[in-house]
Amino acid sequence: MKDSSAHTLHAGHRHLGWDRDLTPVLNAAPGEIVQFETIDASGGQIDPRSTEEAVVRMDPTRVNPITGPVSIDGAERGDALVIEVLEFATTGWGWTAIIPGFGLLADDFPSPRLHLWQYDPERLGPAAFGAHARVPLKPMIGTIGLAPGAPGPHDVIPPRRVGGNMDLRDVQKGSVLKLPVEVAGALLSVGDTHAAQGDGEVCGTAIESGMTVTLRLTLEKDAAPTFPQLRVPGPVTRHLDPHGYEIATGIGPDLMQAARDALRNMIELLTRGSNLSSEDAYLLCSVCADLRISEIVDAPNWVVSVYFPRCVIY
Amino acid sequence: MKDSSAHTLHAGHRHLGWDRDLTPVLNAAPGEIVQFETIDASGGQIDPRSTEEAVVRMDPTRVNPITGPVSIDGAERGDALVIEVLEFATTGWGWTAIIPGFGLLADDFPSPRLHLWQYDPERLGPAAFGAHARVPLKPMIGTIGLAPGAPGPHDVIPPRRVGGNMDLRDVQKGSVLKLPVEVAGALLSVGDTHAAQGDGEVCGTAIESGMTVTLRLTLEKDAAPTFPQLRVPGPVTRHLDPHGYEIATGIGPDLMQAARDALRNMIELLTRGSNLSSEDAYLLCSVCADLRISEIVDAPNWVVSVYFPRCVIY
Repeated sequence: MKDSSAHTLHAGHRHLGWDRDLTPVLNAAPGEIVQFETIDASGGQIDPRSTEEAVVRMDPTRVNPITGPVSIDGAERGDALVIEVLEFATTGWGWTAIIPGFGLLADDFPSPRLHLWQYDPERLGPAAFGAHARVPLKPMIGTIGLAPGAPGPHDVIPPRRVGGNMDLRDVQKGSVLKLPVEVAGALLSVGDTHAAQGDGEVCGTAIESGMTVTLRLTLEKDAAPTFPQLRVPGPVTRHLDPHGYEIATGIGPDLMQAARDALRNMIELLTRGSNLSSEDAYLLCSVCADLRISEIVDAPNWVVSVYFPRCVIY
Repeated sequence: MKDSSAHTLHAGHRHLGWDRDLTPVLNAAPGEIVQFETIDASGGQIDPRSTEEAVVRMDPTRVNPITGPVSIDGAERGDALVIEVLEFATTGWGWTAIIPGFGLLADDFPSPRLHLWQYDPERLGPAAFGAHARVPLKPMIGTIGLAPGAPGPHDVIPPRRVGGNMDLRDVQKGSVLKLPVEVAGALLSVGDTHAAQGDGEVCGTAIESGMTVTLRLTLEKDAAPTFPQLRVPGPVTRHLDPHGYEIATGIGPDLMQAARDALRNMIELLTRGSNLSSEDAYLLCSVCADLRISEIVDAPNWVVSVYFPRCVIY
């Protein structure tokens, strides 16, 4: 998007925790367009030549940097900040890692793993994963949020009612996100952009790629939702749909355990009789498979399902 | 589906609990086709002239009857029963209810509510809900499962690793379900058919409709999955996709609470500035909105989202 009225925030303007006392790096009027340049979620600790060694040595105090904060003129506690996602510009490379101690199956996968991706940043065709898999891409914002009202700093990893690291797969081009404002100026920051991610982000990382994201910011006075809301104007999985899905379930009285069981069931399904390793299956699920709650009412047992798009493996 | 080789099981052959000691009403050879006639989940206690009174008076010991069991020749513990869903024949009417004490938001909705649906059983066009909503239909099987290995009877409401009341939205025409066999003959039963249901079935009922379901049954020896698996050959939400989705999140350290918060957030979103009552919004979410786990790795807070298809309300 070329817009001469747009402000641009370079990735140098980044911070690591949410804090209502941070000094804004930009003041924007409602209706203005702001471009956020983000750096990948490792904060530059992983690059296109990295090996597993970089995952082992990663400094956790430097991960998930966010660009900002931007103060929006007139925003007050109780308002809704409305964020229209206009455009993504991508770099063409990304990474996905199994980070020891992190992820839904951390106990099953104790060893580090790093996969580096190359993709066409213009055409955004599916990104190859070895010789027999390719992942459709759809850039999205993993972390987008406002400063919490409570005094900070607050860790950047967990999301909150003001948003943050929600990893909401459909914060994509054309979507409109509504966040509840808790502090004067709202204090918006953005980071952790992904070239592709499945619902759940099960291994803890997606296709992590720094990007430039163009957003239009407006305000709705006294219209804060209880939790973030998003409008997506069109289909959310059309790029994954053509050959349908393999679905694996987990069933039991605890949703977290059912999610783990469903994912183990899917990894078993994908690796049985194939050359895919369980580490590769876990990584692939994180970037393209969706975690759904199939039923949450037939007490005492719930069903969580992993939907893996069949177009990915050929 | 007209197939002269098909067996037909009438809805009179129904039972209420899972039990390995039930006498099969049919023996089928692997590869054979069986038609199951099902009755609605109330077991006939609700009909097209019912009022809320029928919900209040509903006898819970008679709900969710299933047709069967069918014994499959040669099936043994450790095998997989492979069930190909060939065809649905529907009746053209259905019901959705808020049943006091049941459903994800049972505490918020203490009063009974009944909605009766009429739809074209051949064309299966969207079913009208008042003057300003219509729900795309896609028939599915709510309860499909095998007798557990442990001595019975077992309550029919909770699903288990052998399947049962999974309310897995995509057990639809063209899908192939794989269930783990625990007893000789497998002992398959089917019921609780729905003309439409969202992931989660949040109010506890879908568009409940008796149907005739045609299934092809085959065996894979020594190939039991840990939990049920399903293959769907094509898109799963194309009928809901055209105008995109409204998405409401719930964020916190407990997935169940996050799911409740997300649903309350969606009901608030749907009813704000509209004529829709919160009861109607809850019912509609149950029949067409999907519960997804957006992230399950950013400890200590997870994100659950409700996706409501925008094509439903006009």
